[in-house]
Amino acid sequence: MVRVIMHGCNGKMGQVITRIIEEDPEVEIVAGVDAYMGITNTYPVVESIEKCDIPADVVIDFSNAAAVDGVLDYCAERRIPVVLCTTGLSETQLQHMEEAAKETAVLKSANMSLGINLLMKLLKDAAKVLGTAGFDVEIVEKHHNQKVDAPSGTALALADSVNEALEEACTYNFDRSKDRKKREKNEIGIAAVRGGTIVGEHEVIFAGTDEVIEFKHTAYSKAIFGKGAVEAAKFLAGKPAGRYDMSDVIQL
Amino acid sequence: MVRVIMHGCNGKMGQVITRIIEEDPEVEIVAGVDAYMGITNTYPVVESIEKCDIPADVVIDFSNAAAVDGVLDYCAERRIPVVLCTTGLSETQLQHMEEAAKETAVLKSANMSLGINLLMKLLKDAAKVLGTAGFDVEIVEKHHNQKVDAPSGTALALADSVNEALEEACTYNFDRSKDRKKREKNEIGIAAVRGGTIVGEHEVIFAGTDEVIEFKHTAYSKAIFGKGAVEAAKFLAGKPAGRYDMSDVIQL
Amino acid sequence: MVRVIMHGCNGKMGQVITRIIEEDPEVEIVAGVDAYMGITNTYPVVESIEKCDIPADVVIDFSNAAAVDGVLDYCAERRIPVVLCTTGLSETQLQHMEEAAKETAVLKSANMSLGINLLMKLLKDAAKVLGTAGFDVEIVEKHHNQKVDAPSGTALALADSVNEALEEACTYNFDRSKDRKKREKNEIGIAAVRGGTIVGEHEVIFAGTDEVIEFKHTAYSKAIFGKGAVEAAKFLAGKPAGRYDMSDVIQL
Amino acid sequence: MVRVIMHGCNGKMGQVITRIIEEDPEVEIVAGVDAYMGITNTYPVVESIEKCDIPADVVIDFSNAAAVDGVLDYCAERRIPVVLCTTGLSETQLQHMEEAAKETAVLKSANMSLGINLLMKLLKDAAKVLGTAGFDVEIVEKHHNQKVDAPSGTALALADSVNEALEEACTYNFDRSKDRKKREKNEIGIAAVRGGTIVGEHEVIFAGTDEVIEFKHTAYSKAIFGKGAVEAAKFLAGKPAGRYDMSDVIQL
Repeated sequence: MVRVIMHGCNGKMGQVITRIIEEDPEVEIVAGVDAYMGITNTYPVVESIEKCDIPADVVIDFSNAAAVDGVLDYCAERRIPVVLCTTGLSETQLQHMEEAAKETAVLKSANMSLGINLLMKLLKDAAKVLGTAGFDVEIVEKHHNQKVDAPSGTALALADSVNEALEEACTYNFDRSKDRKKREKNEIGIAAVRGGTIVGEHEVIFAGTDEVIEFKHTAYSKAIFGKGAVEAAKFLAGKPAGRYDMSDVIQL
Repeated sequence: MVRVIMHGCNGKMGQVITRIIEEDPEVEIVAGVDAYMGITNTYPVVESIEKCDIPADVVIDFSNAAAVDGVLDYCAERRIPVVLCTTGLSETQLQHMEEAAKETAVLKSANMSLGINLLMKLLKDAAKVLGTAGFDVEIVEKHHNQKVDAPSGTALALADSVNEALEEACTYNFDRSKDRKKREKNEIGIAAVRGGTIVGEHEVIFAGTDEVIEFKHTAYSKAIFGKGAVEAAKFLAGKPAGRYDMSDVIQL
Repeated sequence: MVRVIMHGCNGKMGQVITRIIEEDPEVEIVAGVDAYMGITNTYPVVESIEKCDIPADVVIDFSNAAAVDGVLDYCAERRIPVVLCTTGLSETQLQHMEEAAKETAVLKSANMSLGINLLMKLLKDAAKVLGTAGFDVEIVEKHHNQKVDAPSGTALALADSVNEALEEACTYNFDRSKDRKKREKNEIGIAAVRGGTIVGEHEVIFAGTDEVIEFKHTAYSKAIFGKGAVEAAKFLAGKPAGRYDMSDVIQL
Repeated sequence: MVRVIMHGCNGKMGQVITRIIEEDPEVEIVAGVDAYMGITNTYPVVESIEKCDIPADVVIDFSNAAAVDGVLDYCAERRIPVVLCTTGLSETQLQHMEEAAKETAVLKSANMSLGINLLMKLLKDAAKVLGTAGFDVEIVEKHHNQKVDAPSGTALALADSVNEALEEACTYNFDRSKDRKKREKNEIGIAAVRGGTIVGEHEVIFAGTDEVIEFKHTAYSKAIFGKGAVEAAKFLAGKPAGRYDMSDVIQL
């Protein structure tokens, strides 16, 4: 049984992870940390991690940037692996993280979803084979109408994965309406669809002669990042010091 | 049994229509017209329509612009309805067509596919209901890598159908990467995917709160334009003089 | 502004509807009713509808079967239209509902989703056109792995909608593996996919010669039933006594 | 430049491969073999392979079972690798093939499509990762209304690929309508959709908690088997004696 300290246990993602772990027999939360105490959990909660002296195998952090330095010091000192899901870290904090990784295992990834990270791996294999065979690659992503950036960071990361595996790097084409010409061989078209409350859909298309292969990932809620964090925690428990990311969790 | 003169019977589409009619018990080709005589058909073929004196209920024309005036005169004089599928007509020819339509039934449409034309009708209904309910409309079309225009004429026609039914007209957005901002309420995003030999795929997406409705049309070959022409011929036989299009064929 | 009494305001769906109405400028909740008082709302809440004397244009009911008779009496007596979303009513209660519908407008539907109800209408039109043109109809639905019935009631309702519009009624085929033979013309295949936590996806496929048209509905949460209830309430306000269902809300 | 003898060059697939090779600068047809001489090709054609003495690097065979023994003898004797695409071989012929494979490289696969074979490889990786993480696997395949078997052999082969990689083997469920119960953990649902002229579509779905990953292959024509054969020929030229299949062509 992997024993977890849930740092930021009373935040939205902390509660999501609490629910996920309740249903996973391989892992349990032995303590929570949160400044906000308005929620009753089945595990003890302290208001800052320094006050936590319950033995644990791994810390999952889904808190806020201000609290991250405390977690890093705590984990480095006690050699407890840590899954760092908090975003928006400063340059100084990223440096702090690298320092901590010399003392303990630290896992941090751009996207915590298991599915998206698996897809990145598989796309490299697909691109190797299908790129050579002359298939064209295109990406369509769909998100809700409140998202300000387009295409999504994940769509770009998927395109980068494909590109890494191709012999000749492709450029990205975000708008085909501006030119009246045939598709360039060495490009990846990336289209962004926006509407309603779509959580996130990514489709990578390999189109060849009379044959199309599609890889599609659909997220139904942000809980998938919690699920990924739990898988990461199970993986990281017991690992030696160093920097890890989600691609390490996906062992092929 | 509807008796058809197939004008342009030995061209690619003429042969496609010949095959379709062979399997349709409600219609038969009584004569073909083609300057090229290298194909043997089960029906008699003459080299120009003026030489055809076999009684017929309707003419299907899939020839070339140069031959269209002859067809129009023939059909107008004999009051035979005509399904005009040849594209690239000149302004003068379009005027000629209007004149002929005073004497006989003339059907001409931007897109001969039954499915696309049905979709245009249904989209208007969907837009009326879902537009009022705050759904966002987006279109994704996919075509082969040799297509020079983007988005496709059909995608624009589908967007126009939606727009006609909305209370406030939407503008079309072909590239969301250029601005960092939320989706505008009154826009329809249209994305063009290009790859391989994809014949043609059109997807119209209505995205609302926690609910998405998609209408998708996939073409597997250009035979669908032949199928549409045959349906149009069956509809047009016996109709009074006037201008018709595929939306008339689809009687709801 | 349509004034709503939210009956069952502190239940899960009551809160969902509260959120939806907060963002809709055309409608407001003037009062809530719930026996459970543990949630603070921006509107006054009473514990049973008899105690509510705030003027309103319509009642939305998402409560439990035991509370429905009270709502019906209240609405019939005051001639307030009511959107009845509570399920599991007894025969006696359904009879009570019919009685109430003589005094006021009562709307009740098997499925409150605007999208699904719209689809049912559009499918009839599509079936009329495509059925005659020889297209085959197939349905694939996807739901979470806890659902016990297959295919879903909504899939069957969609098939029924198609069937009503076809000249010859089709039988439903749930398993093609048991026979080694070609597809029968007069059948609709209905396949049920089960996995993960998929909320609900329904795809109706019309497959013809080299052409496929798909109608797909994806639910991301049960909030869509709340959205449908709000649209129904806006529609029902001011309507004469009688029985209504969601197809009335969708005015084409 | 890989030099190919096209055995069965005037059959439907032989001509498809001729067209594919015309556009591929890495490979050329140096001779064709066909009993039927009614087609004029850009390369010399003999009526049986024994009469062919043009040096070549590989033979592609898309003929008929009666001609296969001749090809095998020819290739074994001259140590020319052979891509064997003809189906319906007898037990004796399969034995003959194994004998020939002692002398030269022989490639034979259940499905010659590059895409399907790639998918089989990637599915194994996906199943390893997602199976452990509790995802459910489901397969939906779509084919034309003349296909007599269901589910398709390819769908079963895809399911087998997934199954090989799972820790616990799954059973296959072809019909969920017959039982009223939740999905079993250790099963793969396989649904067969039949309609119109759909060439072949296979979709493998991994459904987890709030996350779905889909792998989809769409065939637009049987040309994809020709494309796969050409890739196989390029791969096989120069290889040592032995039995190969399409998974060898896909080098990851």
